[in-house]
Amino acid sequence: MTGDAYAVTPLNRVKRLHEKARYDQAAVHGVIDATPMAHIGYAIDGQPFATPTLVWRQGEALYWHGSSASRMVRHLAPGAPACVTFTQLDGLVMARSGFNHSVLYRTAMCFGTARLVTDPEEKAAQLLMAVDRFFPGRSAALRPISKQETKATGLIRLDIESAVAKIADGGVEDEAEDYTHPVWAGIIPLTTVIGPAIADDRLMPGVTEPGAGLEAYRPGRRLDDVVAEAAGE
Amino acid sequence: MTGDAYAVTPLNRVKRLHEKARYDQAAVHGVIDATPMAHIGYAIDGQPFATPTLVWRQGEALYWHGSSASRMVRHLAPGAPACVTFTQLDGLVMARSGFNHSVLYRTAMCFGTARLVTDPEEKAAQLLMAVDRFFPGRSAALRPISKQETKATGLIRLDIESAVAKIADGGVEDEAEDYTHPVWAGIIPLTTVIGPAIADDRLMPGVTEPGAGLEAYRPGRRLDDVVAEAAGE
Repeated sequence: MTGDAYAVTPLNRVKRLHEKARYDQAAVHGVIDATPMAHIGYAIDGQPFATPTLVWRQGEALYWHGSSASRMVRHLAPGAPACVTFTQLDGLVMARSGFNHSVLYRTAMCFGTARLVTDPEEKAAQLLMAVDRFFPGRSAALRPISKQETKATGLIRLDIESAVAKIADGGVEDEAEDYTHPVWAGIIPLTTVIGPAIADDRLMPGVTEPGAGLEAYRPGRRLDDVVAEAAGE
Repeated sequence: MTGDAYAVTPLNRVKRLHEKARYDQAAVHGVIDATPMAHIGYAIDGQPFATPTLVWRQGEALYWHGSSASRMVRHLAPGAPACVTFTQLDGLVMARSGFNHSVLYRTAMCFGTARLVTDPEEKAAQLLMAVDRFFPGRSAALRPISKQETKATGLIRLDIESAVAKIADGGVEDEAEDYTHPVWAGIIPLTTVIGPAIADDRLMPGVTEPGAGLEAYRPGRRLDDVVAEAAGE
């Protein structure tokens, strides 16, 4: 990494639609922080996997967790190369030719070595962060984590060694000669929105509001906005 | 595959939360058909990648395309193992302990060998399907694909050899002794919805409606519903 950008190498260089590539940390972090779920790319004995899971960022470290007994956690525990990809689908681009149909999206691909976190303090702090990063302050209101739960959970960390964001946020781009073709062209926008909270039917008397960490999750709001805000708290 | 289910093998067997696993084709196809974007897991010289792209299904074949010159297409062209994962995030599950926080989701992981489609008829048909599968009938209204565009596009096919769906659609599941803990618990639902179409500012006179293949993309509708409907047409 040089300054506030990731070095451009054969690993992260974007060739196709390279004008959409962003190597600065601000762009990469922006996509990560707005996207709660990522796909972890890894390979076991040559068999590739892409596994979805919640991922959160602390500086240049990405964290996720899983059952200590899971295939992914056991494979990554001793240290293994991984690719963590965050993707938001923002729209459908309807062009005048099939070739120029595309989608609006934001994606960040992060590369590095994933490994199990064994330091007890780091693990304890990040198991709280797994909640607080998305719902600031909520962990303090919960029943505390037990030793058994901590043991049953594998926490994985990947320090970002290389990364690239690709952001397609433009409009229709047709070939010059196609603009006379009489077909509708334009954008179908897509947004992931929060719905009205559904209370569990066994709440204790007097517990009526979602409360700490959930104030921002109001019906109709965009998930990416709320999750990015929470990352900044 | 036996009957209408995928064989359960070490590759696709779900160990963690195995009660959410579904090996029947109907469940796997249901997730695929409702999810336009997938992540392709593959590895080049031991370096894993998870690359997002639009993927469509025809029977037991998955198709996606990319630039013929792209790293992914060139790697997969001669035949390479891949994992294609489709994921929908449907909600956030707020429990009374951090350990029982989770998400509602639908995911399908499909395994097989990806390779370049070289048959000209299959390629021509599927390049139309890349549009028509999502927007039924639209390709007929477009400027036809040119030979140069066909050449510049790499079409990849993966026949599903193994697959599993995992569907988390329940509610909060706390430990029995945690129900007296006085914190709010419940579900924050999430949906990806279609926004009002934005017309390109260079439409031909008289072209005012999105038209063929876009009738179902009405503002406020759920994308997963619309995309799944289109797959059935």
